[in-house]
Amino acid sequence: MPTYTAPVADIQFVLHDVLKVAGQDIPGYADLDPDFTAAVFEEAGKIASHVLAPLNRVGDVEGCMLENGVVRTPTGFRAAFEQLKAGGWPALECDPAYGGQGMPALLGTAVGEIFSAANQSFTMYHGLTHGAYSAIRSHGTAEQMATYLPKLVSCEWTGTMNLTEPHCGTDLGLMRTKAIPQADGTYRITGQKIFISAGDHDLAENVVHLVLAKIPGGPEGIKGVSLFIVPKILVSDDGALRGRNAVSVGKLEEKMGVHGNATCVMNYDEAEGYLLGAEHKGLRAMFTMMNEARLGVAMQGLAQAEAAYQNAAAYAKDRLQGRAVTGPENPDGPADPIIVHPDVRRMLLDQKAFIEGGRAFMLWGATLLDRVRRSGDAEAEGLVSLLTPVLKGFLTDKGFECTIAAQQVLGGHGYIEEWGMSQFARDARITQIYEGANGIQALDLVGRKLASDGGRHMSGFFGRVESFIGACAQKDALGEDFLDPLAAAARDLQAAAAYFLKVGMTDPNAALAGSYDFMHLLGHVALGLMWSQMADASASALAAGEGAAAFHQTKLATGRYYMARLLPATRLHLARIESGAEPVMALGAHAF
Amino acid sequence: MPTYTAPVADIQFVLHDVLKVAGQDIPGYADLDPDFTAAVFEEAGKIASHVLAPLNRVGDVEGCMLENGVVRTPTGFRAAFEQLKAGGWPALECDPAYGGQGMPALLGTAVGEIFSAANQSFTMYHGLTHGAYSAIRSHGTAEQMATYLPKLVSCEWTGTMNLTEPHCGTDLGLMRTKAIPQADGTYRITGQKIFISAGDHDLAENVVHLVLAKIPGGPEGIKGVSLFIVPKILVSDDGALRGRNAVSVGKLEEKMGVHGNATCVMNYDEAEGYLLGAEHKGLRAMFTMMNEARLGVAMQGLAQAEAAYQNAAAYAKDRLQGRAVTGPENPDGPADPIIVHPDVRRMLLDQKAFIEGGRAFMLWGATLLDRVRRSGDAEAEGLVSLLTPVLKGFLTDKGFECTIAAQQVLGGHGYIEEWGMSQFARDARITQIYEGANGIQALDLVGRKLASDGGRHMSGFFGRVESFIGACAQKDALGEDFLDPLAAAARDLQAAAAYFLKVGMTDPNAALAGSYDFMHLLGHVALGLMWSQMADASASALAAGEGAAAFHQTKLATGRYYMARLLPATRLHLARIESGAEPVMALGAHAF
Repeated sequence: MPTYTAPVADIQFVLHDVLKVAGQDIPGYADLDPDFTAAVFEEAGKIASHVLAPLNRVGDVEGCMLENGVVRTPTGFRAAFEQLKAGGWPALECDPAYGGQGMPALLGTAVGEIFSAANQSFTMYHGLTHGAYSAIRSHGTAEQMATYLPKLVSCEWTGTMNLTEPHCGTDLGLMRTKAIPQADGTYRITGQKIFISAGDHDLAENVVHLVLAKIPGGPEGIKGVSLFIVPKILVSDDGALRGRNAVSVGKLEEKMGVHGNATCVMNYDEAEGYLLGAEHKGLRAMFTMMNEARLGVAMQGLAQAEAAYQNAAAYAKDRLQGRAVTGPENPDGPADPIIVHPDVRRMLLDQKAFIEGGRAFMLWGATLLDRVRRSGDAEAEGLVSLLTPVLKGFLTDKGFECTIAAQQVLGGHGYIEEWGMSQFARDARITQIYEGANGIQALDLVGRKLASDGGRHMSGFFGRVESFIGACAQKDALGEDFLDPLAAAARDLQAAAAYFLKVGMTDPNAALAGSYDFMHLLGHVALGLMWSQMADASASALAAGEGAAAFHQTKLATGRYYMARLLPATRLHLARIESGAEPVMALGAHAF
Repeated sequence: MPTYTAPVADIQFVLHDVLKVAGQDIPGYADLDPDFTAAVFEEAGKIASHVLAPLNRVGDVEGCMLENGVVRTPTGFRAAFEQLKAGGWPALECDPAYGGQGMPALLGTAVGEIFSAANQSFTMYHGLTHGAYSAIRSHGTAEQMATYLPKLVSCEWTGTMNLTEPHCGTDLGLMRTKAIPQADGTYRITGQKIFISAGDHDLAENVVHLVLAKIPGGPEGIKGVSLFIVPKILVSDDGALRGRNAVSVGKLEEKMGVHGNATCVMNYDEAEGYLLGAEHKGLRAMFTMMNEARLGVAMQGLAQAEAAYQNAAAYAKDRLQGRAVTGPENPDGPADPIIVHPDVRRMLLDQKAFIEGGRAFMLWGATLLDRVRRSGDAEAEGLVSLLTPVLKGFLTDKGFECTIAAQQVLGGHGYIEEWGMSQFARDARITQIYEGANGIQALDLVGRKLASDGGRHMSGFFGRVESFIGACAQKDALGEDFLDPLAAAARDLQAAAAYFLKVGMTDPNAALAGSYDFMHLLGHVALGLMWSQMADASASALAAGEGAAAFHQTKLATGRYYMARLLPATRLHLARIESGAEPVMALGAHAF
């Protein structure tokens, strides 16, 4: 049975030694002193280890059941959800005006990692609720806010997002679900939505569906899509529940993973709905949540990697097979623990170096999001819009790879469900697909974000890399191991960006053929920057004699591994990008 | 519901245009004319498409059941197994003296791909039987051969391999299963074995277990391991079955995939067994089968990739979402098929280019195996021993990656079990683990094969690359697109081999830290060689006006993709190798 322990020291290091959050000029950040955040993470860690992690395999094995139109969650989920609500955890990031605790996205993201690592399926129920909360808070009327927000903040009600239809996923312009205006200002929603996570369940008394639909007579395609609030149970003016809406679960999907979360086919049959935001501006309302939701999925990918890594490392220190090639390290035992073998270490370090770098990238992204929301910072907004597809695509791809590597450490036991390693991989796999498949992230990055605002956001990113290298140029501790490889990787990134600028206008396929590699190339440079910053922080702490020396020495060694063994991937991505459109587009469709 | 069609034209191309098998001086190969092999593959393809593929999801969903000590296979497996036996398919590669058809391993491997792609779990039952057949044929007494071989050839009985114990997988020296000699020359076997594929089932009247165990008083560790034949049901001298042996199924494992194959905990409780081969030489007997078995697993990895690719390509041509960036290609439809999008093509071509190159590599490996067996060729034996870990490790790693990429093409539908893409990935995953986890393959390659016989096998491989490049130097059709990148990749491989030679003696950890990258580096160069040979064959056919021009043009374009977009990975692998042991070994075990 796998276990999970929140990596509090690692999170604290990123917040306080690297990002120095309490000193950042973001409203609310001054309160984030190390003692306070440590207390929050320790408390979240206890729930994660003792309540959520033990339910992870229960959820996987039992899954959700649809019985007489009602979805039952796995044994124990309901009690755990009550415990989470009682602790106010779902309200952490929400507006105090509606019962929230007003904490920054940074804190919510870090806590989200802890809960998600312990039990992704479970954590999705309140994660999606937060998405619905954000949409209503950004686009709702005063009345809508008063009706829905307090219930969503407390998780007495939960939320969903309804975009996909059987014939239309990425291309929402093909949508068929209809919303017919009624005389009383409400709409009648009719259509079928699929892949609705947490679409129904027994954890809350109501489910608030946010549904994209078309009002007849509106513009064609994607410009005629509006967003509606469609509660499972209708709400009276006084807030009381007044009976079922015409919303039903058509089917529960059997999936590769996240079995504990109900993925529903939702049928709307003249269901009562209320316009959220302006008519035909539904996508804009949905996109408000996008950066937040995509950062949330990046977090999930990373979280599964962390959970899998912890169990792989424990196994590698425990399992005795063979002897170290340089002589026995456990001479009194029948064999050495497999962690003595270089290739086992390679697998563990691939994970460890990615996870710690990825966490820094994710938490940096969360501070940018806070800076946008709390300070209205335009530069941060540009940067976070550029980096969001990278966070989502790169961290979930690498996160999944880590779960596979972790599984491999256990050999045959990794393939047996009882050991739990398969579930980490199966659950992580969805993060590469939902909230915009990773290929769509790459398209968003290269097709829109890269050139937007005259390429200013990309220049801003390069500027940060360059100014960090410049500021550290005199630090011998970093030079050869960190700054040189970072500079080389940044040059690869610049060459790739220059290539897109050159060919993008004349041969858009050439840019798009390299989009996925560019997403990974940018991800590697971002992690190279993160590792260089972490190395700088650890080297400074060691020089000043602050903190635990072993902790900082481990950071430096792990960072060196990243720079030496993972970052050189930038050259391969550049070679692929520069091969252009021809290899990708040469064949007609019939040749596949 | 996924479908499968045997890629007969692609297999035929490798056999006849590239390897020109009928002209090779290997006994039995002269019979392999194109009409004959095409007829075999077409017939195997019919069974695969119409009998085995429809049972693939049945096997996944139902799995095997242990009821009162008896394992039941999924609905339909038994009838399909009878059909396969009736067609003589399991006997294809076996010795005619025991009822086999005497075909080369080459034919068996190609047919194995077809069956395995359609249903890996099912195909394992007779695949493992062939392993037991090979061991007994190589090491059995005349009496043992007479008793067991005809039944294994016909699959009236099936076979297993019993190596792993709960505390001992890779390190077989830790084995505890005991074999106590009896006065009548038999042994009493007692112990527990785990992860026994096809350990029990209802497809055959008997199961012949090959069991590794220790005879008390023998040498310590791995040198004291012997191999035994332990039938589930004891056999009288006249060949009649005479009652149950003390062998029982302790448990069926719940696994990530291959649910249709029973993975058993086998308990031996003073079971009657018969020594196979010499006392204490059990590992040697097991290793006889190893090259064959590892090639078989490489084949499985490739086969799942092919099956997944076929369904991903079909989906990409059918699913309408969005428009080509260069203008609508399906202007009368609501959207274009997603195959117009460069990133979708990237995913498909990553698969297609790997699969076709990998198939050529695998079939070349099978001809080398035939040359060893049928001609006793020492050079081929050295080369196949060098390439076997690469075939197993590289083709299964890349095969799994292909199934993940294929799943990604389907977006959300890829994650839903009903579509079958998840099963391809879950089934393929085991190929990276069993028959020696891929890290062990890398260790075998760098720790043993690379330097064995003074590095002669590696030099032999380089010699083949160089002589091919030399022979083609005047062919303009190949130069820039194929020969130049192949030569560059071969230089990376040579640099890596030179690095290992330099550091291997003084710092074995430095060699082992790079072993996995070396396995992939060698795999890429091998596929680069295969693609160059295929390009040469297709260019020649086009120049001569032979064959279907579209087929050969597609081969050339797919090959160019491999050379331009996949082969450059050699540089990254070399960089990782040359980073040495330090990044991998720097941390103490406590730091993980």
